[in-house]
Amino acid sequence: MTVGRQPPPPRPLSWRHGYDRATLRADATAGLTVAVMLVPQSMAYAALAGVPPVTGLYASIVPLLVYALLGTSGQLAVGPVAITALLTASAVAPLAEGDPSRYAALAALLALLVGAIQLLLGLLRAGVLVSFLSHAVIVGFTGGAAVLIGASQLRDALGVEAARADALPGTVAALAGALDETHLPTLVLAVGAVAALLALKRLAPRLPGPLLVVAAGTALAATVDTGVRVLGDVPAGLPLPTWPAAPLEDVVTLLPAAAAIAVISYAEGISVAKALAARARQRIGDNAELRAVGGANVAAGLFAAFPVAGGFSRSAVAADAGARTPAAGAIAALAVALVAALLTPLLSTLPYAALAAIVLVAVVGLIDVGEARHVLRTDRAEGGALAVTFLATVLLGVELGLLLGVAASLGVLLWRVSRPHIAELGRVEGTTLLRSTARWPTHRDPRVAVLRVDGPLHFADAARVADALRALPAARPELTAVVLDASAVSGIDASAAHDVASALAELDDAGVEVHLATVRGPVRDVLDRADEASLADHHRWHATVEDAVLAVVDPPSPLLAPAQGERAPAGLV
Amino acid sequence: MTVGRQPPPPRPLSWRHGYDRATLRADATAGLTVAVMLVPQSMAYAALAGVPPVTGLYASIVPLLVYALLGTSGQLAVGPVAITALLTASAVAPLAEGDPSRYAALAALLALLVGAIQLLLGLLRAGVLVSFLSHAVIVGFTGGAAVLIGASQLRDALGVEAARADALPGTVAALAGALDETHLPTLVLAVGAVAALLALKRLAPRLPGPLLVVAAGTALAATVDTGVRVLGDVPAGLPLPTWPAAPLEDVVTLLPAAAAIAVISYAEGISVAKALAARARQRIGDNAELRAVGGANVAAGLFAAFPVAGGFSRSAVAADAGARTPAAGAIAALAVALVAALLTPLLSTLPYAALAAIVLVAVVGLIDVGEARHVLRTDRAEGGALAVTFLATVLLGVELGLLLGVAASLGVLLWRVSRPHIAELGRVEGTTLLRSTARWPTHRDPRVAVLRVDGPLHFADAARVADALRALPAARPELTAVVLDASAVSGIDASAAHDVASALAELDDAGVEVHLATVRGPVRDVLDRADEASLADHHRWHATVEDAVLAVVDPPSPLLAPAQGERAPAGLV
Repeated sequence: MTVGRQPPPPRPLSWRHGYDRATLRADATAGLTVAVMLVPQSMAYAALAGVPPVTGLYASIVPLLVYALLGTSGQLAVGPVAITALLTASAVAPLAEGDPSRYAALAALLALLVGAIQLLLGLLRAGVLVSFLSHAVIVGFTGGAAVLIGASQLRDALGVEAARADALPGTVAALAGALDETHLPTLVLAVGAVAALLALKRLAPRLPGPLLVVAAGTALAATVDTGVRVLGDVPAGLPLPTWPAAPLEDVVTLLPAAAAIAVISYAEGISVAKALAARARQRIGDNAELRAVGGANVAAGLFAAFPVAGGFSRSAVAADAGARTPAAGAIAALAVALVAALLTPLLSTLPYAALAAIVLVAVVGLIDVGEARHVLRTDRAEGGALAVTFLATVLLGVELGLLLGVAASLGVLLWRVSRPHIAELGRVEGTTLLRSTARWPTHRDPRVAVLRVDGPLHFADAARVADALRALPAARPELTAVVLDASAVSGIDASAAHDVASALAELDDAGVEVHLATVRGPVRDVLDRADEASLADHHRWHATVEDAVLAVVDPPSPLLAPAQGERAPAGLV
Repeated sequence: MTVGRQPPPPRPLSWRHGYDRATLRADATAGLTVAVMLVPQSMAYAALAGVPPVTGLYASIVPLLVYALLGTSGQLAVGPVAITALLTASAVAPLAEGDPSRYAALAALLALLVGAIQLLLGLLRAGVLVSFLSHAVIVGFTGGAAVLIGASQLRDALGVEAARADALPGTVAALAGALDETHLPTLVLAVGAVAALLALKRLAPRLPGPLLVVAAGTALAATVDTGVRVLGDVPAGLPLPTWPAAPLEDVVTLLPAAAAIAVISYAEGISVAKALAARARQRIGDNAELRAVGGANVAAGLFAAFPVAGGFSRSAVAADAGARTPAAGAIAALAVALVAALLTPLLSTLPYAALAAIVLVAVVGLIDVGEARHVLRTDRAEGGALAVTFLATVLLGVELGLLLGVAASLGVLLWRVSRPHIAELGRVEGTTLLRSTARWPTHRDPRVAVLRVDGPLHFADAARVADALRALPAARPELTAVVLDASAVSGIDASAAHDVASALAELDDAGVEVHLATVRGPVRDVLDRADEASLADHHRWHATVEDAVLAVVDPPSPLLAPAQGERAPAGLV
């Protein structure tokens, strides 16, 4: 897969060489900027995950330190993110049966499992597995999850008690039933917080909107007693490592969700990290990143937190603020640790509605309508997979949505690779080039069919190509030769070699000579091993399709030389 | 998929035009030859399926007439075959709980379901679905099923009572437990019958071995009372149409097995029919064949029989005997009908051991060791899928074997299409051709990387290509340009266009100019629609890779002209 010699991907901690004062200054600025976002966001995502908000702070300390030790991206900001928080709630809530301490233990166990799966995949160097999560599925799933997340926050924004549901219809029904109990001061606070966040984002993008909203909301609730729901007493101090107290059968029950979170959280992080690294002219290691986020999740599990991932918006902020090495994340972790150790008593009057407002504003950015439209316009099949993923996620929940989305996109891929394109070539007017007769004004010779097969040949598509070849003699009475341009046949398997060889042997029997041009190396190897007489005969192989045509055509032929006065069509590239 | 105008596939009954005496004579000879095989084989396969042997005759009358009305193959001999008989036993036996009349009703219902599925797929023109059943899976599954069939016949050959098992370990255990009850006369008869069949096959291949063995065995058991198990009273006459008496929940339970039989029985038939049609210079219609075998199965269900398919050996015999049109099958059906109407009283002393011997000899031909070895040698991944299918079928049973086999071969396909090959090109010594530097002695220019990507680009492989491109500037300090030969990129999807475009834009930013050569039509269309600036710029597109090199290289360059005295390497094709 690699071309020529390339520098190996960076190793963990290799950034420590040449770490100087300037780098430290840049990392410290970025780390503190991230911490300012991380404190309110991590508590908001903890509430979304269904655990006490202070757990969000716990998820933002040791996991970040572990990532700094194992990770290779200077910009990736690890911590609680919206999608994995939603996936956590969706996996844990049905098992916890309303018991908060069991809920917290299950969330920590889930993080441990996610981390174990990621470490295992990273050690197996299986990071490439995420490439089967197509862009369309990620866009559709993220958008669908954002809708679910937004809907789930309406409960806290309205100040009502409504049952949690896995998908939109259930959430809407539960909210509709509770609508007449709306707590007006809470709703006013939530709407005000959303308005403030949007206004700050637009008018003063440099100001830390979420932190200001949290501070203002906390101060307001501390001064005026309006009955809005607040965090209440928050334990001060730092978490100690504990093994999640959950029985073994929970491990089995949580495994599918853990696998989904492991893949999703890595996929989100790696795409952000790659994009930011490319911009900074740095490289990152795919499998090192998988191990690093796995280590972070194991740490989250051992420190009473919940699954974490590399987050999109905080990483972008870190990169903007000049983050250069994973030390930036460690500095953010130390800042959060200070808050958790010293400032938690201040948080007792933080309203849930303020956290809900932060989540609501954050998830709007996850719904990428422009990209969805672009995919739909460029590629209908992928657009279909995107729509299936989005709708299934919104209507059936995250697990089924992800599963159906992946199935749909693999189905599209299989459907595509089972329909190879066959182009008939002719000589483009005024040139000696052979190109598709469907796209260019060309000359053909009724005695010779020049065909280009586009696509790797394998068991699922070779029969179609063989059938198309078999049908030629009956359709073209003057046919004496077929030239097969194999330049776009990128690979072949044993089934396909057998199918195509049979068809070529039948053409031979029918008096139609077959020659091959531009057989690619990987295809040569299989044909030589398969040793099918009609395909492996090197006397019928030619370096270019023009050579092959010369070998089978008796001049004069419209395929051979440009006639006097012909001119190439414009735009021939 | 089709190239140019082609004659449409033949339609049902179109063979009636120009049907003359000579054709009738050929069809009649072939039909009677097939009937001579069909009478003993169909009874043997009925015993294998677990239904009364006379049911085999019923399965060989109306279904064959229906196939003659709907089918397009002149050679395909429809009727009971070994694999679908085994699949029938495997699906029906667990449900019937030892009740023979319920067993028969379930077998008929299964045929009805198989037929309904095939008709539906045929009307949806979904015959192409069988192309996902790879050659390797078919060879492995057929071989594994043959082992199971052979083992299942040992019970009748030993004359013991042993429980039916789904897979080899259970069958072997059941037989081992019953071995000391072996009925010696039965064993002698079975061994004698097998020896006679093998001897006749070798010494007098024109003689109808199975019929002679059945006749001799029946006569022997009628004369000498040795206690071998015989058919007993067989109802005379022809079956009347009846709706299978089975409740609706059986439909649901049988559906998965029916789907498997529908695909397997069509796949077996269509491959035989295509091979024989090609030899006879005839064409057949894929979806017409699916509808025809579906109609035959519906008829089998309505006439108290069990699933049928186009059989390999009988079709080959029919073709050898000169069958020209589907009328040959109808003639065979009429001959079987005569036997069923008039001769069944003679069958009461037909020993089951003789039928077991016929099956045992027939299934040996299904184990294709040579083909398995060829696949393993040509293509390790496909060989792996073959081995998985064979072992899973033998050890776990037909349903799981088929399922795991299909999963393995789709996995191989996905793995393959997610690993595109990238070749670096250089000028082949003594020529102006650009070829892989890994395969030919070539000249390169450190300022220009000429890369050929082999394979369609889609979400599952594009990230690897993008990463390989991104890594170039860091690895090659002198690099000023990249030429991407897209001749082997047979397709692209929106995800891939986006990934590759991002990498190219980053190369641009790093001062490396990227040009594209030989962009195939289907790829052009997607790139134009995707409108990614770095990919859709036609000024960077070139008709040939040599043109693209000329556009980016300042002469002199090792890529441009052959030096004096250079000679092309031998065997450059």
